[in-house]
Amino acid sequence: MRFATVTGADGRSTAAADPGDGWRRLPAPHLSAYLAEFPAASAQNVLGERIEPTALTLPLPEPRKVVCCGLNYADHILEMGRELPAHPTLFAKYADTLIGPTDDITLPPGLNVDWEAELAVVVGTEIRGADRDEAAAAIFGYTVANDVSVRDWQKRTLQWFQGKAWDHSTPIGPIVVTPDELDPVAGVEVVCRVDGVERQRGTTSQLVFDAAALVAYVSTFTRLRPGDLVLTGTPSGVGMGMTPPVFLTDGAVLETEITGLGVLRNRVVFR
Amino acid sequence: MRFATVTGADGRSTAAADPGDGWRRLPAPHLSAYLAEFPAASAQNVLGERIEPTALTLPLPEPRKVVCCGLNYADHILEMGRELPAHPTLFAKYADTLIGPTDDITLPPGLNVDWEAELAVVVGTEIRGADRDEAAAAIFGYTVANDVSVRDWQKRTLQWFQGKAWDHSTPIGPIVVTPDELDPVAGVEVVCRVDGVERQRGTTSQLVFDAAALVAYVSTFTRLRPGDLVLTGTPSGVGMGMTPPVFLTDGAVLETEITGLGVLRNRVVFR
Repeated sequence: MRFATVTGADGRSTAAADPGDGWRRLPAPHLSAYLAEFPAASAQNVLGERIEPTALTLPLPEPRKVVCCGLNYADHILEMGRELPAHPTLFAKYADTLIGPTDDITLPPGLNVDWEAELAVVVGTEIRGADRDEAAAAIFGYTVANDVSVRDWQKRTLQWFQGKAWDHSTPIGPIVVTPDELDPVAGVEVVCRVDGVERQRGTTSQLVFDAAALVAYVSTFTRLRPGDLVLTGTPSGVGMGMTPPVFLTDGAVLETEITGLGVLRNRVVFR
Repeated sequence: MRFATVTGADGRSTAAADPGDGWRRLPAPHLSAYLAEFPAASAQNVLGERIEPTALTLPLPEPRKVVCCGLNYADHILEMGRELPAHPTLFAKYADTLIGPTDDITLPPGLNVDWEAELAVVVGTEIRGADRDEAAAAIFGYTVANDVSVRDWQKRTLQWFQGKAWDHSTPIGPIVVTPDELDPVAGVEVVCRVDGVERQRGTTSQLVFDAAALVAYVSTFTRLRPGDLVLTGTPSGVGMGMTPPVFLTDGAVLETEITGLGVLRNRVVFR
């Protein structure tokens, strides 16, 4: 099934689900609230009236935790001459970091702003200390993310966090698709375009730590709850890897697309 | 003024303030809720009945953001032969990471668990892009923290986060003291004892980035709100710096003390 947070014809936000024949209202203002209140399996029981969304907005506006993984695409790691990592490299973002699928990426001018197209995992069940099977069962669905990164701040110190957690920088959406309809282990394509030029194309079959492995690993040290997000890392082709490095310019249009999940289309606005 | 989250004689949690003659009830179940609802300056106006706390608990159970700074004591950095950093090294913890001033530090067995006594800053005003003066004015108060760290996980990758965000590991409290009663720039002593043996003793006058500088810096990239926490780093004397390294054992008692702020006393429980 497909899920989203949408703006209805009445201008109000609502969680919504599409069981295959169009969007239907769910009894919550957004998916964060929906997942907090209703077990994922019950969506069929609470499907409401048919609606015609006027916009798809940030599907999960209130995650408690947004955990991100770096260095996770095997082909990219091996082409850089590095060994595959034994453990995932993790860092955090905030709910404040996130924006919707068509929102502007708003940052102050003068920063080195780079793209990182990523598959994001949405947690559907509260878990701690999960093994792989429990983690797989706890995955509510998948969505698209772009882990937009302020490279100069990311590199100021050894810890990336201050380059990764700028408010209103990381687009998420447009929809969340459940695992019965999408299998990242088999491979879905992750693509990033800047002003129409393709900069990244990878497949999730190359993930060193796949969705279930990452969710299980994170749950070893901290509880994950419905609506929390785990970002799975980006394939090769980021701007700082180009010679010379290329960064996003004011007004640039960043498109992030994953097969079966749709496209994020966000304008960069320096102000 | 002193603030705390306490258990009253009725067994219920309440925010409380002590204007100098004893604890008085505040109209919220804990300081996170109190700071979210009431401007800091109004405490005098909402002081309720006198109470006799039976326990001081985690003062801020629901911060949205817990930002921590590493490598911030000048004497320790210089004695290690390093240059003073141009920018603070930052990483994140979660509300789930925090425990109260007498709670057990509960972790699974087999980890290399280390201590880091720290001054913590409590934000009192919503700020973004604050300069130093605005940041100083936004500080609600100070409390004691121990940034208990799982060193083996911290060192698994370049990013420290996975060693820093273990649920139920980081004691905070016992009280929050407002800046008119405590001046960390002039210097307050930060002490850590393990099973009665002093392991750390530093003074906050050695902070490379003081409380106002850290709050201003973090607010450059993300909004800080009332009740958010900024941990200011630890002085020399951590267990991994000893030869051979020493880590906390099951049943160890960790005491963390700052002049004017009191003592955290937490038992380590591996289970």
